[in-house]
Amino acid sequence: METYGIGLIGCGTVGSGVARILLEHTERLTARTGKKLQLRRVLVRDPAKRRQVELPPGLVTTRLEDLKTDPNIQVVAELAGGVDWPRRAVLELLEAGKDIVTANKALLAEHGAELFDAGRRFGRAIAFEASVAGGVPIITALTQSLAANQITAVQAILNGTSNFILTGMSEENLPYRDALAEAQRLGYAEADPTLDVDGTDAAQKLAILAQIAFGVNARLDSFERRGIAEIDSIDIQYARELGYTIKLLAEAWLSGRKLALHVSPVLLRKHDPLALVRGPYNAIHLVGDVVGDTLFYGRGAGQMPTASAVVADLIDMAVGRAHNTFRSLRLWCGNGGNIELQPSSTVRSRFYLRMFVEDRPGVLAQICTVLANYRISITSLIQHEALEDHEGDIVPLVIMTHTASTADFRAAVADLADLPFLRETIAYYPVAD
Amino acid sequence: METYGIGLIGCGTVGSGVARILLEHTERLTARTGKKLQLRRVLVRDPAKRRQVELPPGLVTTRLEDLKTDPNIQVVAELAGGVDWPRRAVLELLEAGKDIVTANKALLAEHGAELFDAGRRFGRAIAFEASVAGGVPIITALTQSLAANQITAVQAILNGTSNFILTGMSEENLPYRDALAEAQRLGYAEADPTLDVDGTDAAQKLAILAQIAFGVNARLDSFERRGIAEIDSIDIQYARELGYTIKLLAEAWLSGRKLALHVSPVLLRKHDPLALVRGPYNAIHLVGDVVGDTLFYGRGAGQMPTASAVVADLIDMAVGRAHNTFRSLRLWCGNGGNIELQPSSTVRSRFYLRMFVEDRPGVLAQICTVLANYRISITSLIQHEALEDHEGDIVPLVIMTHTASTADFRAAVADLADLPFLRETIAYYPVAD
Repeated sequence: METYGIGLIGCGTVGSGVARILLEHTERLTARTGKKLQLRRVLVRDPAKRRQVELPPGLVTTRLEDLKTDPNIQVVAELAGGVDWPRRAVLELLEAGKDIVTANKALLAEHGAELFDAGRRFGRAIAFEASVAGGVPIITALTQSLAANQITAVQAILNGTSNFILTGMSEENLPYRDALAEAQRLGYAEADPTLDVDGTDAAQKLAILAQIAFGVNARLDSFERRGIAEIDSIDIQYARELGYTIKLLAEAWLSGRKLALHVSPVLLRKHDPLALVRGPYNAIHLVGDVVGDTLFYGRGAGQMPTASAVVADLIDMAVGRAHNTFRSLRLWCGNGGNIELQPSSTVRSRFYLRMFVEDRPGVLAQICTVLANYRISITSLIQHEALEDHEGDIVPLVIMTHTASTADFRAAVADLADLPFLRETIAYYPVAD
Repeated sequence: METYGIGLIGCGTVGSGVARILLEHTERLTARTGKKLQLRRVLVRDPAKRRQVELPPGLVTTRLEDLKTDPNIQVVAELAGGVDWPRRAVLELLEAGKDIVTANKALLAEHGAELFDAGRRFGRAIAFEASVAGGVPIITALTQSLAANQITAVQAILNGTSNFILTGMSEENLPYRDALAEAQRLGYAEADPTLDVDGTDAAQKLAILAQIAFGVNARLDSFERRGIAEIDSIDIQYARELGYTIKLLAEAWLSGRKLALHVSPVLLRKHDPLALVRGPYNAIHLVGDVVGDTLFYGRGAGQMPTASAVVADLIDMAVGRAHNTFRSLRLWCGNGGNIELQPSSTVRSRFYLRMFVEDRPGVLAQICTVLANYRISITSLIQHEALEDHEGDIVPLVIMTHTASTADFRAAVADLADLPFLRETIAYYPVAD
């Protein structure tokens, strides 16, 4: 039986999981591929470090050269993290004739064009199912299963850390910092959670989905990105009162030839399937012009779900499917069609707006006048009694608007912030229809 | 640019949808495949019949021979329905060197082994994404995306007609016949709905999933199959009162090396993701030993969702992926591993049990004694006041049991039916944990 040689870069959480599957489930992998999958080399920075998998002697190396020059390694799974070193390593491996599997969303979001171009030039393939939504096979869905469709909308929960924190804030009324601490305790958030909670992680994944679904090369600085760290529990409570749940969504939607993109906390109706996604799970709602609505749900991170996706890619490589996909898709090759990125300021949406104001005559009239100046209509309004932890004369005011352009809405918020009776900062989030 | 020739068998609802995509979206299909996909022949029974698509002149034929002998037809999509004639047609086409795409679940459930064997013998491929759950790419998920996993459980809503009817019964309190009439009016149920509502359609799809996920060749008569036609609205109401929703589920789950399978109305906890699937939608909850829980949701039937899946298979054929998949999977080839079908009678489950009984002393004691004789414990019991449409002395009695074997439970039900104070038939359904 033919042997198919595999190299690994990185043996941290995901790398250990991949190594375990390759070492412990050889029979299963042979049944799926008709080949003997063999883990030949594992590249690490520190060979002395304790790992979550016991590797056979002789596999560990610190030299990329050992992977490049082994003629029996056909594919390398890059699971190291970071951007600059993996970029150089992948380019060298492609040139050395190795196919690449990667879970590195930052690498693809920043250097996808260069890497895919190199892959094509050297006749190799790159597979990256694990880079978006971990165990949820969204890349295969977009590149194969829904290939008869023009995707018209993507609405997704792509950051499990943020969703876990928001679930805690919503269901247990925890303040942000306590929900984050709980996520850290359970391993759903890292010690420095910045890239998860500020929306960067979700934005990198959205950029990859935008490339695949719309052929649009969306740089991270070209679309709106907000995270969850600024969300006040009070807005989660008001949203609930209005029949909504706040979720960190990565969204892309097509209007004619224009693609709107953003990562933002969004108010979703409480019965929306995405509103029901709890804890560390991911879910992606796709709309295709032929198939209609579809939804894909599962674990978006973690050792074994991500390893499941990496090994699926290795199997695709071993049976040759990945090469067919890579050749026929021509991703990041600059001819992705005629869809253009819509400037964030022109994106239209309904909005949730919450202020704390002094409770005195004329306040509401002035607020409504500012909104009217920007042609923004109000659909509903809640004014509650003053809260315990505020002065007796300060009341929260919640307004839901009709559809408005982001630019108009922002300008209105800036004007509102200048009003003399405003207290604290204004909170606002888009509302999904 | 290379041309890739396609033949169609059948130009009914799905066939018309496929033809429309092939004729109207040529640019899109070329971008996905790097080839010019060309619809060359459409085989129909009655060329004079009015169709939902306008076919270019010269495409329609009534002779299978015209597809077999056209050297420029590489693949034929079989969308005719029925079993015997399509079986012969597919065998002849494979022998003539054509690859096959089919949406025909009955054909695969009955003759999968013969057809896949012929495909291998003639070096051709068979793809069948559209045969299960229409626009939901569950075949690709199982054969590719989750290939690193041993699937341990499948729990699925695979019949949109039944789910639409149950949704109407549950949310609008309609009796079965009114909900069915509404489904027929909206085109979700056929004039003769038998195969949908008696569980046959879901069982055929489950048999296909069992082959792919577990390598088990499950004949339709080898597992339990119940439909929805006998469900009384009253049981939907009692289930709701207990916190459950009744869904027609196709389930398969692995215990050691034994596979339990059934199609049955099942009580699901009301927050279970599958309990939330409404109307004509399908959803499949898969558990893999590596990835954990995943869920796939979308339209399981209808012209365009099914056509989306058929065209995805045609694209897979055009780029060569389908051949890699077909070769490496070796489905229906009799060496699917060592998983055995568990006899239905030994399957263990919790049960919902509803009786109408005369309201007199000693009744409950006798019922409990019968259950105890078969070592069946009760977890909860509801006894309501008599209903309006029953005699004053007849009351409904609802019992939820602990886990019991199906054989024991059935035997207990048979004994209960002999008790003198029983009225009407006993209703019982498994309860998902």
